[in-house]
Amino acid sequence: MSDLHEDTAALLAEAKTPTRRPTVAALEEKLFRPVHVLDHGFVRVIDYMGDDAAIVQAARVSYGKGTKSQRNDRGLIRYLMRHRHTTPMEMCEIKLHVKLPIFVARQWIRHRTANVNEYSARYSILDREFYIPEPGQLAEQSNSNRQGREQPLSSEQAQAVRDILRRDAMTCYDTYTNMINDDGTGEKIDPNAPQVARELARINLGAGYYTQWYWKTDLHNLFHFLSLRAHSHAQYEIQVYAEAIAEMTKLWVPMAFEAFEDYRMGAAHFSTDEVKILRAALDGVSLREFLKGSDLSAREVNEFRKKLGKI
Amino acid sequence: MSDLHEDTAALLAEAKTPTRRPTVAALEEKLFRPVHVLDHGFVRVIDYMGDDAAIVQAARVSYGKGTKSQRNDRGLIRYLMRHRHTTPMEMCEIKLHVKLPIFVARQWIRHRTANVNEYSARYSILDREFYIPEPGQLAEQSNSNRQGREQPLSSEQAQAVRDILRRDAMTCYDTYTNMINDDGTGEKIDPNAPQVARELARINLGAGYYTQWYWKTDLHNLFHFLSLRAHSHAQYEIQVYAEAIAEMTKLWVPMAFEAFEDYRMGAAHFSTDEVKILRAALDGVSLREFLKGSDLSAREVNEFRKKLGKI
Amino acid sequence: MSDLHEDTAALLAEAKTPTRRPTVAALEEKLFRPVHVLDHGFVRVIDYMGDDAAIVQAARVSYGKGTKSQRNDRGLIRYLMRHRHTTPMEMCEIKLHVKLPIFVARQWIRHRTANVNEYSARYSILDREFYIPEPGQLAEQSNSNRQGREQPLSSEQAQAVRDILRRDAMTCYDTYTNMINDDGTGEKIDPNAPQVARELARINLGAGYYTQWYWKTDLHNLFHFLSLRAHSHAQYEIQVYAEAIAEMTKLWVPMAFEAFEDYRMGAAHFSTDEVKILRAALDGVSLREFLKGSDLSAREVNEFRKKLGKI
Amino acid sequence: MSDLHEDTAALLAEAKTPTRRPTVAALEEKLFRPVHVLDHGFVRVIDYMGDDAAIVQAARVSYGKGTKSQRNDRGLIRYLMRHRHTTPMEMCEIKLHVKLPIFVARQWIRHRTANVNEYSARYSILDREFYIPEPGQLAEQSNSNRQGREQPLSSEQAQAVRDILRRDAMTCYDTYTNMINDDGTGEKIDPNAPQVARELARINLGAGYYTQWYWKTDLHNLFHFLSLRAHSHAQYEIQVYAEAIAEMTKLWVPMAFEAFEDYRMGAAHFSTDEVKILRAALDGVSLREFLKGSDLSAREVNEFRKKLGKI
Repeated sequence: MSDLHEDTAALLAEAKTPTRRPTVAALEEKLFRPVHVLDHGFVRVIDYMGDDAAIVQAARVSYGKGTKSQRNDRGLIRYLMRHRHTTPMEMCEIKLHVKLPIFVARQWIRHRTANVNEYSARYSILDREFYIPEPGQLAEQSNSNRQGREQPLSSEQAQAVRDILRRDAMTCYDTYTNMINDDGTGEKIDPNAPQVARELARINLGAGYYTQWYWKTDLHNLFHFLSLRAHSHAQYEIQVYAEAIAEMTKLWVPMAFEAFEDYRMGAAHFSTDEVKILRAALDGVSLREFLKGSDLSAREVNEFRKKLGKI
Repeated sequence: MSDLHEDTAALLAEAKTPTRRPTVAALEEKLFRPVHVLDHGFVRVIDYMGDDAAIVQAARVSYGKGTKSQRNDRGLIRYLMRHRHTTPMEMCEIKLHVKLPIFVARQWIRHRTANVNEYSARYSILDREFYIPEPGQLAEQSNSNRQGREQPLSSEQAQAVRDILRRDAMTCYDTYTNMINDDGTGEKIDPNAPQVARELARINLGAGYYTQWYWKTDLHNLFHFLSLRAHSHAQYEIQVYAEAIAEMTKLWVPMAFEAFEDYRMGAAHFSTDEVKILRAALDGVSLREFLKGSDLSAREVNEFRKKLGKI
Repeated sequence: MSDLHEDTAALLAEAKTPTRRPTVAALEEKLFRPVHVLDHGFVRVIDYMGDDAAIVQAARVSYGKGTKSQRNDRGLIRYLMRHRHTTPMEMCEIKLHVKLPIFVARQWIRHRTANVNEYSARYSILDREFYIPEPGQLAEQSNSNRQGREQPLSSEQAQAVRDILRRDAMTCYDTYTNMINDDGTGEKIDPNAPQVARELARINLGAGYYTQWYWKTDLHNLFHFLSLRAHSHAQYEIQVYAEAIAEMTKLWVPMAFEAFEDYRMGAAHFSTDEVKILRAALDGVSLREFLKGSDLSAREVNEFRKKLGKI
Repeated sequence: MSDLHEDTAALLAEAKTPTRRPTVAALEEKLFRPVHVLDHGFVRVIDYMGDDAAIVQAARVSYGKGTKSQRNDRGLIRYLMRHRHTTPMEMCEIKLHVKLPIFVARQWIRHRTANVNEYSARYSILDREFYIPEPGQLAEQSNSNRQGREQPLSSEQAQAVRDILRRDAMTCYDTYTNMINDDGTGEKIDPNAPQVARELARINLGAGYYTQWYWKTDLHNLFHFLSLRAHSHAQYEIQVYAEAIAEMTKLWVPMAFEAFEDYRMGAAHFSTDEVKILRAALDGVSLREFLKGSDLSAREVNEFRKKLGKI
């Protein structure tokens, strides 16, 4: 499993072909070039279809002359995003090549509306590459957030954890190599030992080992992915991938991305009761008084304050 | 609803942009150019992603060095198709602009794994365009095939049917125009009459009226669509669209299309019992004798004979 | 196409079988009984899987002991809904039998994550049943909302529109009957005339004709359907179906439905800029002053005021 | 992560409720009862919707009177299966609770058209349970099939592999326990050590560790799953799950399952060229002679012979 696919050299060549398809110069510059993520991972754009104008074009097919009132593309895209008219966003597609730890892949794959070709450890041999968190990322279990981390470890503690993670990963890989008894050429290392089937040997490798895949999705589903995985509640190790992809998306469809940030990433959602409270507050009722008398649970009151930056 | 979207002129221009993406010269020639289907319909390719090499590239990510034994791209693509390893086919994507009668759209939309933006008759005004079958297509209900047609009408009968279809469609459109009371400019035709909401007025138009949409899907799902809709059991009016798209697909991914024809379109499927019969027949048992003694229903025997060209 | 499937009588029988599966007594009472919608339509529940407890059970599999802190089922369900943890909602499933006009079916089918078996007019004969809007529903095209209706017609105008819709529908159906030349028994009405294939004859019938289908979906996707189709911006004729289904959903999963109403249906979504304005307003800045100086378009200011009930 | 969910006792109780829904007595007997798979895994049915009659009922909605000619349910179901009319199969749904090794889960999750709630190792603590293959399952890498296993190891070799797999798994779990520093009560084991976040600590555990999930799918997609995973080319460890589910499916929808076996599992697929050869062979041309002169690759000739049992 080489980091970059063997014909990458060819792909990276400056050779360009003329096309009549919509082309995004800013993204063309980045095509095939890996953006490094975590200690051994990367993301790179392999192909894309469509641009901001393709979203507008699809919306205009739907609405016909009904879109004439939207004087410009930016306004129309913002309108679509605001009102969750998502089908025109589906008219853009992107294909990525990602190298990522298995535990990240396990979260990522839950996004079902995507096409995936993953490296198969039944067919081929996994490399000795595994994720060791940076010391600053090694943190204690959060008490308030059951699925999060909180207080970073001391640098000694962090170093100890890193050492033991590396030790276990190396031990397991040595076992793997011994079991498959293959130096990658198909030749036996130990001529007297068996070559255990790869599909069995790989079960000894941990969730920190790297895999890779081609992942292709449309812009609507990409935004959904980003809204969940670039979110502060996502696990750090998938967040960094989401952020790298967000940067690429910004180059690809700058208007749609701006609308996504304004209406999705930075937006807040208020429940029926919360809207009532907001209305009363704007009419001069003290927020503090109102919350006291409300049906909101303590947890909801906290979430409400957080959304308004009143913590 | 103009046949071709207003910025088509621009699209049709010879202007080309350089790209590093995979480009298929044969398909570039056809981009944006409508292929006429039925009396007022068309299909045209708006955009595409990937080519035969992109299928191979994705398969090689999955199988790693495991694909080295497949010496060439064509062999690998045929292997994938034969063994229904379909995910690499999903790495290619195509976007079409289609103008089609509503009853065809209703069959087509049942293919769920696609992205669609359809012209909205809630927003905009439908044109006076409806499908009248060619005389040669007007046929009697089939007796053997509950969902098919058989014996063509005589030319007098066909002409009579065409006349009455046209008459009804025109009457309904006149009513539509009167109800919306709009000449397409938003101005009233009759200043004293109301302008009934478009979303209501359109219910008076029949399933033969034309709609249009952008339709985007991946190659695996496109092949599935073609296998069902270019099939002789599909309704003629959707078959002709499927055939037009098949021609485009052949230009786009010639190797994959050839494999699709060999292993899907032209292939035959034999049940457990049928395989037993085949085996015996190859061992010299008379097919006729064998079928007599088998559990197959008369219907299945017919289907079996048909698959072997022994009708 | 009889309204109720032929074995409905059996289904409606009081016969009950014991089951170990989760059972919802309130919904059992309604099983198979059609709720009438529009002039000839209906919705009825054919089957269901799961209940509120099934959502909780699935969530507890995911979170393990991590859900112990959520002391009760209602609190956990509300937490899931609030934070859009939607997968446990997918563990409930419902199957409906719906009779609906074709133009409503065309909007409905755009919800792709569902299973559908629709009555086929290629196989079978459509009944002489079409939708004629109630006078109070016949309204003029809205100017502010390109896809809506506004001012109702006068009762004379409405009656005139109803008459002409009925006239056109009857004429088209007469043509249909003449073309298929079949009284429903397979026997010819006119022994000397042809029987045009059903798949062709049906193209003469309008979008107001009724079709029917079985439609099956999970609770998460049902909520998505309801959020779009029970919404005031949806076309009235699909809204009434969504409302009928909402009532059934409330009986089926009362806790989840309550949470859905509080956090989805009654909720408001504020953009990055709108949240800034809210924060300032709560700090005492005059909303009016703030809006003057903001980047929001006139349209967005209107939408903002509407969300806060300040119109 | 207890094997069986805490309220299983209640579920297993004999308590039954009356329902009007279709009920399958043979499956009711098996509800909630785990079928053991591999060394620590299981599958159990949690809920189901529909039965053979529900498939027929949905088909009859589609075809209307057009299905009258199919005199009985079994014949209709076989017809649907033979002609790949799959939508009526989607009207049945099943929900399973599965405990399975992570590497099996990684293959399984690739079936995207299903609903899943998996145990989260971000929230909760994984048990010290991992898969160790039975000696008879430990085999060498296949040479002919890049993704398979072949010649079993000798019993000494197998024992050595099992010992080292167990040793590595135990070592990694000890590290895991030390990192999370929690005996499962939330209390620290070592009061002076940190409690590393679970989402980090779990990356040290291998793909052989057990996870569990609720998995819900419709019958059409279940058949697709079984056709790929109960197939002899699937990895043994997922095959045994597929076989256990096949047994349950047979109890649930016996007619559909029989048709699935006859037309899918036991069926053979012949390409355009292979059909030509079959036709010629049935006309008396020697198969051997014909194959010599054909365009089939050596690999295809082998596959062809295999399908006909002529190896």
